[in-house]
Amino acid sequence: MDLALAEARAAAARGEVPVGAVVTDAAGRVLAAAGNEVEARGDPSAHAELLALRAAAAGRANKFLGDCILTVTLEPCPMCAQAASLFRIGRLVFGAYDPKGGGVEHGARVLAAASCHHRPEVVGGVREGECAALLRAFFAARR
Amino acid sequence: MDLALAEARAAAARGEVPVGAVVTDAAGRVLAAAGNEVEARGDPSAHAELLALRAAAAGRANKFLGDCILTVTLEPCPMCAQAASLFRIGRLVFGAYDPKGGGVEHGARVLAAASCHHRPEVVGGVREGECAALLRAFFAARR
Repeated sequence: MDLALAEARAAAARGEVPVGAVVTDAAGRVLAAAGNEVEARGDPSAHAELLALRAAAAGRANKFLGDCILTVTLEPCPMCAQAASLFRIGRLVFGAYDPKGGGVEHGARVLAAASCHHRPEVVGGVREGECAALLRAFFAARR
Repeated sequence: MDLALAEARAAAARGEVPVGAVVTDAAGRVLAAAGNEVEARGDPSAHAELLALRAAAAGRANKFLGDCILTVTLEPCPMCAQAASLFRIGRLVFGAYDPKGGGVEHGARVLAAASCHHRPEVVGGVREGECAALLRAFFAARR
């Protein structure tokens, strides 16, 4: 989560919503790390999670990440929750809960749907305070 | 839908699950068209919809597509449904319904969640028979 937080801070410094994501393998090696790049790429789908998942799979030349952990500073939205399932991530760890935009413990609860083909183990609220504080500070500065 | 079906057929010819997607603007101009590229890219998130949305926004240098229609041969999964919302697509038109993997009229029903910030108008079942026949033929040939 330290690295995910660093990616989130770097995203904030670029004017992006501060969310960071890291994919690690079973040995704890970092396969990919990314921050939000929505503004930089002009791409609303350039969420940290999707970028990190794609980079991790590309780096291993294996499109499934069943032995891997996706660690992200914010509860993933429905797009990223479903992407974690499509990449068959073994475990999803996230920091702040997102009642407004989250799609794991809130909203569409994508991974809980009966039709979800692969459900990662989910651990939410990890270093929640630090992760949420980054987002609060970012949005407070913009108001 | 003709162009989306052509993209789906081209995807099948490449060994991809035959799904095609097209983004058109208010004047009916095609901004982007894509077929599934999951196998070719080794990227489980390389669904036709996400590729077409990204290409359409990049081509216009405008990350929102509120005046556009996303036409796809199959009901989008939760990832692509949420992506359509994030790109603020005006209307989503799809062909075959997907009770097993769909996320619009089935499963997580992403766009119906109270927390969904932008809901495109949705029209499902357009040329459903042709769209579904392509998928059935593809999977029958693989069994």
